[in-house]
Amino acid sequence: MKKVVIAYSGGLDTSYCAKSLSNEGFEVHAVSVNTGGFSKEEVQRIGDNAKKIGATTYKNIDAVSSFYDKVVKYLIFGNVLKNNTYPLSVSAERIVQAIEIINYAKEIGAKYIAHGSTGAGNDQVRFDMIFQIIAPEIEIITPIRDKQLSRQEEIDYLKANGVEMNWEKSKYSVNKGLWGTSVGGAETLTSHEPLPESAFPSQLSEKEVGKISLSFTKGELTAINDKEDSPENNIQILEEIAKKYAIGRDIHVGDTIIGIKGRVGFEAASASIIIKAHHLLEKHTLSKWQLQHKDYVANWYGTHLHEGQYLDPVMRDFEALLQSSQERVTGKVFVSLHPYRFVLDGISSPYDLMNSNFGNYGEENKAWTANDAKGFIKILSNAGKIYQSVENN
Amino acid sequence: MKKVVIAYSGGLDTSYCAKSLSNEGFEVHAVSVNTGGFSKEEVQRIGDNAKKIGATTYKNIDAVSSFYDKVVKYLIFGNVLKNNTYPLSVSAERIVQAIEIINYAKEIGAKYIAHGSTGAGNDQVRFDMIFQIIAPEIEIITPIRDKQLSRQEEIDYLKANGVEMNWEKSKYSVNKGLWGTSVGGAETLTSHEPLPESAFPSQLSEKEVGKISLSFTKGELTAINDKEDSPENNIQILEEIAKKYAIGRDIHVGDTIIGIKGRVGFEAASASIIIKAHHLLEKHTLSKWQLQHKDYVANWYGTHLHEGQYLDPVMRDFEALLQSSQERVTGKVFVSLHPYRFVLDGISSPYDLMNSNFGNYGEENKAWTANDAKGFIKILSNAGKIYQSVENN
Amino acid sequence: MKKVVIAYSGGLDTSYCAKSLSNEGFEVHAVSVNTGGFSKEEVQRIGDNAKKIGATTYKNIDAVSSFYDKVVKYLIFGNVLKNNTYPLSVSAERIVQAIEIINYAKEIGAKYIAHGSTGAGNDQVRFDMIFQIIAPEIEIITPIRDKQLSRQEEIDYLKANGVEMNWEKSKYSVNKGLWGTSVGGAETLTSHEPLPESAFPSQLSEKEVGKISLSFTKGELTAINDKEDSPENNIQILEEIAKKYAIGRDIHVGDTIIGIKGRVGFEAASASIIIKAHHLLEKHTLSKWQLQHKDYVANWYGTHLHEGQYLDPVMRDFEALLQSSQERVTGKVFVSLHPYRFVLDGISSPYDLMNSNFGNYGEENKAWTANDAKGFIKILSNAGKIYQSVENN
Amino acid sequence: MKKVVIAYSGGLDTSYCAKSLSNEGFEVHAVSVNTGGFSKEEVQRIGDNAKKIGATTYKNIDAVSSFYDKVVKYLIFGNVLKNNTYPLSVSAERIVQAIEIINYAKEIGAKYIAHGSTGAGNDQVRFDMIFQIIAPEIEIITPIRDKQLSRQEEIDYLKANGVEMNWEKSKYSVNKGLWGTSVGGAETLTSHEPLPESAFPSQLSEKEVGKISLSFTKGELTAINDKEDSPENNIQILEEIAKKYAIGRDIHVGDTIIGIKGRVGFEAASASIIIKAHHLLEKHTLSKWQLQHKDYVANWYGTHLHEGQYLDPVMRDFEALLQSSQERVTGKVFVSLHPYRFVLDGISSPYDLMNSNFGNYGEENKAWTANDAKGFIKILSNAGKIYQSVENN
Repeated sequence: MKKVVIAYSGGLDTSYCAKSLSNEGFEVHAVSVNTGGFSKEEVQRIGDNAKKIGATTYKNIDAVSSFYDKVVKYLIFGNVLKNNTYPLSVSAERIVQAIEIINYAKEIGAKYIAHGSTGAGNDQVRFDMIFQIIAPEIEIITPIRDKQLSRQEEIDYLKANGVEMNWEKSKYSVNKGLWGTSVGGAETLTSHEPLPESAFPSQLSEKEVGKISLSFTKGELTAINDKEDSPENNIQILEEIAKKYAIGRDIHVGDTIIGIKGRVGFEAASASIIIKAHHLLEKHTLSKWQLQHKDYVANWYGTHLHEGQYLDPVMRDFEALLQSSQERVTGKVFVSLHPYRFVLDGISSPYDLMNSNFGNYGEENKAWTANDAKGFIKILSNAGKIYQSVENN
Repeated sequence: MKKVVIAYSGGLDTSYCAKSLSNEGFEVHAVSVNTGGFSKEEVQRIGDNAKKIGATTYKNIDAVSSFYDKVVKYLIFGNVLKNNTYPLSVSAERIVQAIEIINYAKEIGAKYIAHGSTGAGNDQVRFDMIFQIIAPEIEIITPIRDKQLSRQEEIDYLKANGVEMNWEKSKYSVNKGLWGTSVGGAETLTSHEPLPESAFPSQLSEKEVGKISLSFTKGELTAINDKEDSPENNIQILEEIAKKYAIGRDIHVGDTIIGIKGRVGFEAASASIIIKAHHLLEKHTLSKWQLQHKDYVANWYGTHLHEGQYLDPVMRDFEALLQSSQERVTGKVFVSLHPYRFVLDGISSPYDLMNSNFGNYGEENKAWTANDAKGFIKILSNAGKIYQSVENN
Repeated sequence: MKKVVIAYSGGLDTSYCAKSLSNEGFEVHAVSVNTGGFSKEEVQRIGDNAKKIGATTYKNIDAVSSFYDKVVKYLIFGNVLKNNTYPLSVSAERIVQAIEIINYAKEIGAKYIAHGSTGAGNDQVRFDMIFQIIAPEIEIITPIRDKQLSRQEEIDYLKANGVEMNWEKSKYSVNKGLWGTSVGGAETLTSHEPLPESAFPSQLSEKEVGKISLSFTKGELTAINDKEDSPENNIQILEEIAKKYAIGRDIHVGDTIIGIKGRVGFEAASASIIIKAHHLLEKHTLSKWQLQHKDYVANWYGTHLHEGQYLDPVMRDFEALLQSSQERVTGKVFVSLHPYRFVLDGISSPYDLMNSNFGNYGEENKAWTANDAKGFIKILSNAGKIYQSVENN
Repeated sequence: MKKVVIAYSGGLDTSYCAKSLSNEGFEVHAVSVNTGGFSKEEVQRIGDNAKKIGATTYKNIDAVSSFYDKVVKYLIFGNVLKNNTYPLSVSAERIVQAIEIINYAKEIGAKYIAHGSTGAGNDQVRFDMIFQIIAPEIEIITPIRDKQLSRQEEIDYLKANGVEMNWEKSKYSVNKGLWGTSVGGAETLTSHEPLPESAFPSQLSEKEVGKISLSFTKGELTAINDKEDSPENNIQILEEIAKKYAIGRDIHVGDTIIGIKGRVGFEAASASIIIKAHHLLEKHTLSKWQLQHKDYVANWYGTHLHEGQYLDPVMRDFEALLQSSQERVTGKVFVSLHPYRFVLDGISSPYDLMNSNFGNYGEENKAWTANDAKGFIKILSNAGKIYQSVENN
């Protein structure tokens, strides 16, 4: 029998796919990949649905650590915010999910792999590319993209095949993961309307100002309020603290891989705070040139990741540079949490380049004389003077 | 008699300079340049002090429009935030002040020019470089940098010369201009302490959410709430509205031209809102490649400006690119103002590239088929497949 | 009757296309675009073939000046050599040909447009993209790509339809234009074999060293040996002189738009000399920062052009920067021509920044003192000293 | 007694420095650093001169391997040619010489370090910066820069102090090292004159075309004509072969650190061939994105190195990226040597991305269909179509 692995979410689309593939004679192996968004209950519910739909097997792959190690770590090292706003929450997850799923398919000897993406978005590109590159011998099946059925047609099909579940369509499409939650639909399909408060999963529940410290070791978040834990756990711990303040909400406007522009809301309290805190620590501990050039690399790292190019070897080269740059990004960042916003109060670090005996900015200098400064400026002006003198010829 | 033009602020340092130059036999011409920070009263006060100090003439040059045209406009076109935080408020002003002053010196035939910068900061570099390049024949005199006197020594000198004024040293050094106000001192000399609320010139006085619209025409802010005015006026009008919300405060940590790191607080309500609003409009109206490459140019425009390289011809080249990129950056941005923060609600534009019949992000596509998408992804995967196949050789 | 415009080269493939479209009931309008590669005789021959094939009309569009103004000028301003080798001869032509052809189709009211590209190369992408973007309402027909016939099948089809011509397949596929000639086939399909001398259209016929001067005015080649002519004519005049030396031959190895790597020979005597001469003049007349940043822009200009993105608005922004950068690129470059190579002897320019009273490189300086230099270096070392001192903590 | 280490070349300037320091009461320790330019005879001669001048000790440090490992390796990985011409021969050496000398000074407990640079060039900056950063406690002495004596004054001083040697001033200042030889003076002080043949150390002595193969392993030159040796030896072996062809001569025009432009001739047969051969191998083995982004990094690596910023930590980050990028740069490059030039014939590599079953450039494709290609182009055109449709609103 023909084995197919299906990326299964438990929802209507992938349930329809699973059922119809099963009817077409496939042995269906459902798999979900948790990159930080699933509770135990959700995994249970997905598994239950898989069973109802008649999947031969169901497996949930826990990929939180893998997600952190492969991608999130470098997004932090690079302070990556796509279009200066979006921590790439969904893009980043999809990559790791695709890798886990295709590896699972190879492992169980499936010759087919199915997913529920439409033909209109980025996810189809990310999934297909990674599937094709890692396992060109495995055929990709995408019933949703190919058939373009209405929700009602899918529901009817499932009912006719004995699957009756409560498929309620929520107003917003919500994707939750370790690095943030995206919220799409309704207002985000327009250019001018903001999302209402209620559209965001987390609601403001804490109004007292909170003070926390984030400890980074070579760029990784190793402790919160001096309590050590793994970076991926710390991200989740911080999320629990900060989401009560409804921090990190915004709307991302960006270009899809397929050339159209899209708008999507997100909330990413932990990601937002970590990136800004990490960046502040870098401003104190990296050289001017490191800050300048890291930006180029990180910006492209984000763009290529967003566009599904994670497997391009240039990404490994970028990771090598980003890793190298974190050698001294060690220290503590002090953050105040307020409703809907946070403030970076300051940092302390053994590698703080500001904390020196060299003279303070704008204050009296100790390490050089007025004449040194004049010589410096004189020579720094050479090129301009020559240029000007030629112009006036 | 030897004419010297002095960049005069009315404060202790430049008063000392003026007086001592006068004693050394110079004919002192005091000049101040208003780049948006001076009220009428302040100009009056500076002029009065100039008289007390015995300046032969005093002139205030109004350079707000020149500042906007020469620099601020391009900072907006480029969405320039140094180190992703600081709108370059002070750096930008100094450039224009230096140009105005040296041109004034040439105009009145002065052979000497004086300013009150110390040898420890960026301003000496910006002033000296522009003075030397535009008028290498005019000699620069910097008594503060050269003599490194204490405040008390300066006060004593002035007193001994019959100038008795109330020189109170404020806790913070505050610089106000069209594009923001910097606040340095006390906490900013440490790495870990935030500025207290009271250090900021504007205090929170409005707690009701405000809604405003900003209209841009080819990248320039041409109307607020549909009321048209010149961009430089609109910047000031917006500042009056937004500063009541205490918006746009932060601390900039950056590298000085002289190689040390510095930390300075700022409040820049208008600049912060305009840059973010303008950037959002660009995300809707520029191509992906415009957004990508503008960033490179704008980032360097900011860096070179910060480092006093305004006269380098590359800046004119950058300006040409930035100007060209604004061709379609026309439309309205809707903003909500909240205490300490603002939210970009959305935009409307005749050039909105998201507003099309092409298919919406993640929704059903109209302009291409599932097979088109598959072909696209297949070919997009070519390079990766070849790479992988070679690796597995 | 259904009008189709066909990009017609007079060769077997496009003759087959024309004939078969005619048989399918289209009114065939053949058009060729001369971007510098056609002699009068060739235009005559193409027109004759068009007639034989039964085209309703044939038109040759002279696009040499348009090619220069739209593209070549900026390739010179940017010193563009793809992968540091290839002057983008073919890529650049295709763009302008596509624009001319689609505009012609719109002009004569054709609803269809045909070209003879295969599905394996870059040209299909360049043609299709520009056609679709400029006239999405015109349908594109590509019989060669769709049917994948052998040469013999095409010849047989034409013979069966009364068209008997001498279709000799040359060993190499040669494309000639204003900016160079590409030579593909045989050895270029391997990675290790060079093209034999005989594969190149121009053969060495001059062994005496030649001396020429190239005069540039704001970056454009306005005279050769002090004889003025239009830049596009000068490019051709220089080609006639330099090709006798067999200058400018190489093999380009690059990435196609469709993700595979390709290798193609070329000879481009004029382009090679002009770019290197222009670059040398820039090294003397542009600031360090102009040279640095122009490279970024020019490199991407070449990449986007190569990949058919000429219509992206970012290209207009790049052109604005490149144009601005040429303000002072005026002067004369002295070149020696040798068999297979050339030497840049030097330049003279009113804007030569090396020709100053400022002190010569490595010689005694006049404009600053030893102490100035020491001050300069001391302060330039600040950042490094601080970094080192922190490391040693 | 006050120990001073002097960077000693055996020439007039540094002999003067050594003698005058000795007279001022210093204990003079002469040191020379061989980065590939010294023969045994030269070392002997320098040592003899050191003795004549009365140095307490003389040491020659062999730094060829260190030079290769620290710098040259990365210049090859990055295909670094400053201003697209100059392999940075001298700049690169100075860095390593400075590091060796200052470490030697620390080792022997010297409190002073002297060198013979003038105040007009780059070398003073490179030496002083590295000395100050690595050992801020050691005082730098630069008699030539400070005193600005004429050659005759120096000769007279030495004679008066009993040192009589034959100080002939050669027409050209020649600096030889592993990575090339620079030739400055006479014509290079003008903008328009080329260096005569005779100015170059190596003269054409071989006119028969030579064929060689260069084997690279992860980017390093590990064999010539299949004969293995260390990369630094291979560079020298290749130089011996290639210099007979007078290959790799040119004039570099560039910006000095101190803001003036300079012109310097060089011959660098081995460096020129290796960089071009290595680059060709990369075009076959690296992804498009690796080639694109490596260029950015390599260009800046070269610029920072040239400007003496070798110790900035960003250089370590760049090195990490460059090293990572070489993972597959393994294979053989075939080169033909001709008088004054060379031709890259082709490459072979197990990682050749062109050598695949995927379809050849411009030939019939195997891995995708005409419809795939059409879908690809359609979607690639999306952004342009939307842009155009909005423009036509």
